[in-house]
Amino acid sequence: MKAPRGTQDLLPGVSDKWQYVEGKLKELSNLYQYKEIRTPIFEHTELFERGVGDTTDIVQKEMYTFTDKGDRSITLRPEGTASVVRAFVQHKLFGSPSQPTKLFYIGPMFRYERPQQGRMRQFVQYGVEALGSADPAIDAEVISLAMNAYQSLGLKSLKLVINSLGDQESRENHRQALIDHFTPVKEELCSDCQTRLEQNPLRVLDCKKDRDHEAMATAPSILDYLNEESSQYFEKVQAYLDAMNISYIVDKNLVRGLDYYNHTAFEIMSDAQGFGAITTLSGGGRYNGLVQELGGPETPGIGFAMSIERLLMALEAEGVDLPIDERLDCYVISIGDEANIKAASIVNKLRESGIQVDKDYQGKKMKAQFKAADRLQAKFVLVLGEDELANNQIAVKNMDSGEQDTIELEQLNGYLQRLL
Amino acid sequence: MKAPRGTQDLLPGVSDKWQYVEGKLKELSNLYQYKEIRTPIFEHTELFERGVGDTTDIVQKEMYTFTDKGDRSITLRPEGTASVVRAFVQHKLFGSPSQPTKLFYIGPMFRYERPQQGRMRQFVQYGVEALGSADPAIDAEVISLAMNAYQSLGLKSLKLVINSLGDQESRENHRQALIDHFTPVKEELCSDCQTRLEQNPLRVLDCKKDRDHEAMATAPSILDYLNEESSQYFEKVQAYLDAMNISYIVDKNLVRGLDYYNHTAFEIMSDAQGFGAITTLSGGGRYNGLVQELGGPETPGIGFAMSIERLLMALEAEGVDLPIDERLDCYVISIGDEANIKAASIVNKLRESGIQVDKDYQGKKMKAQFKAADRLQAKFVLVLGEDELANNQIAVKNMDSGEQDTIELEQLNGYLQRLL
Repeated sequence: MKAPRGTQDLLPGVSDKWQYVEGKLKELSNLYQYKEIRTPIFEHTELFERGVGDTTDIVQKEMYTFTDKGDRSITLRPEGTASVVRAFVQHKLFGSPSQPTKLFYIGPMFRYERPQQGRMRQFVQYGVEALGSADPAIDAEVISLAMNAYQSLGLKSLKLVINSLGDQESRENHRQALIDHFTPVKEELCSDCQTRLEQNPLRVLDCKKDRDHEAMATAPSILDYLNEESSQYFEKVQAYLDAMNISYIVDKNLVRGLDYYNHTAFEIMSDAQGFGAITTLSGGGRYNGLVQELGGPETPGIGFAMSIERLLMALEAEGVDLPIDERLDCYVISIGDEANIKAASIVNKLRESGIQVDKDYQGKKMKAQFKAADRLQAKFVLVLGEDELANNQIAVKNMDSGEQDTIELEQLNGYLQRLL
Repeated sequence: MKAPRGTQDLLPGVSDKWQYVEGKLKELSNLYQYKEIRTPIFEHTELFERGVGDTTDIVQKEMYTFTDKGDRSITLRPEGTASVVRAFVQHKLFGSPSQPTKLFYIGPMFRYERPQQGRMRQFVQYGVEALGSADPAIDAEVISLAMNAYQSLGLKSLKLVINSLGDQESRENHRQALIDHFTPVKEELCSDCQTRLEQNPLRVLDCKKDRDHEAMATAPSILDYLNEESSQYFEKVQAYLDAMNISYIVDKNLVRGLDYYNHTAFEIMSDAQGFGAITTLSGGGRYNGLVQELGGPETPGIGFAMSIERLLMALEAEGVDLPIDERLDCYVISIGDEANIKAASIVNKLRESGIQVDKDYQGKKMKAQFKAADRLQAKFVLVLGEDELANNQIAVKNMDSGEQDTIELEQLNGYLQRLL
């Protein structure tokens, strides 16, 4: 029996990398004062139809949707923002005196896509949402957090791309310009784009099939349709990024696949050699209408999401070694029933005082036990032989220096604490 | 819109308790050398039918089972052991030279039950599995890890109950004795128990409906049917527990709801006042047949699972305060466009050097910014006024001592590092 297609098991040796990376991301979130929120793995399907947008590929093609025993339509979450905003509204977090509400999440998401490297059906996203501020400084903060997440883990080949999608007025003017631009060549576009042109023409620019069509290169840019306010907002975001020494490229073709974005949009890419075809590490942007769409008061919001799988791929592509300690503190060796029982009590006491210990559980001979200690790179090997057992002592061998001591059992804890 | 029935959002203030508890459990797993494994949220339904047992309530009534877009029957995992064993077999972990394979997992599980306190439809379990050792010492290690998990978090009102379900021969003899015992009163038992009596009579003892039936008290105990080997095994487990100073009660009526258990079974309960009707915190036991059942080589195994929700309930019932630092390091105050941009760059630099900082993102007046800093219990408030801005300085107020300094911006990092 195997794990379902598009899912994977993370085994020891890999899971410790995940632990390290996730630990760093939690630490970083704390430095930036984003607090963890955990929402359920599944939600009512309607949430994603409304919150992600029912013209998106995610909702139309990729959701794990099913009916539960209570006849509700539920869906495994395909992304994190809709759920966070749902929780923000449900628990009236907008009423808290501390605004903006700065949240982060980390956990599995689900999309039924054709599995390939860096695109699994179950994948893990880390993301943040800042709800309640329309200050361009927080756009910059969110971008800086995303960049810092990669940089603090050691990544260097990063490219930050930003754009503005403008406010509603700017978007509507641009939308009309797009319709005017693409309608004459409508028949030459893919069938998805023909539908998109009616429903959400911005997303035509995002099409992978039509990306080489000549009308793409000449398509009207949103930046030419920003009204005064949107334009000033975008300039301020850039002034903040400049002040923070964050390099970026403005790409007027950057649009985001989700319907609810406005103003700032950004993507971070890896340009490391060997990272592969998928270069986008994370993306985010502002979504000032979403809280209202999901039944809350008018509240500005901005956030991003990053895939942990791709982060780990980028670390690998850049050859970054994570500082994970793989060595074991102590290995206790014993032979015979009486010594084994004594050894178990010693192991237990050491662990209770915070020392990492292991012993044999397979009735191995002395030599094989030493070999196991070697394999685990034990710093100390503790041997409970007949003499030691009789005298309430234990032999302690420092595996790095080769030094050997015989220690009273009573003093073992203190002895090891000093050396470890 | 609300989270689905039986699920919950963990918000800041609660999520930090979860982070603390989970961090402790990971640390403890590391001390005991159990390594993390992460398996998918859903599996092929067949896995649970075979690995949990198709006569169990879980499989018969409580699973979130659905058909995916590829027409596979998949199920949100109702527990962790079957998935871990599936991964152990799929990735041939039995072939690694380091045996037993000691694994832990922590993550959401799903059961469609009537929601009540301490019983959610989505809940989180921490669990360990040790695969590849039939040494009674590892039964004791697993039990000691479970007990230590609670104790190291500060719980005191704990009760450990153990039993032996014996090996296959012992179980078959006991099974026959149970059939002989209950058959005369079969018509008086609930309909589930009538079925159980044929399929798996041991589970009659576990029935909540029939627990007061007089035949229950006089039912034959497995302990009277243990053969020599099983009996010796159970005695050794107890000798190890004694040597580790772990108190326990032998309860011959302790059986486990899952089909694949044999030999050692245990439960840990809270007897704290006010813990409520559900007193079981965790349970586990030995399952020597499961690896083979799921297609692997004959491999002994033992493990346990604990609910994090109930662990947190027990901490609350015992009034344990977790040592969570809620104070903010620094809050930066600024007024005006120029100062705000400068403040953002200061905030960014401090965070890059590992200092936790926040600032205003709502265009608040000076006084309201001070109030926000108070609310976040900032240790230091940094004020960037006009004079400071002009002189490349910043005013630093120590909120505990009331002391105030004016610091050159260049020296701010070092100054704060020394004091924090």
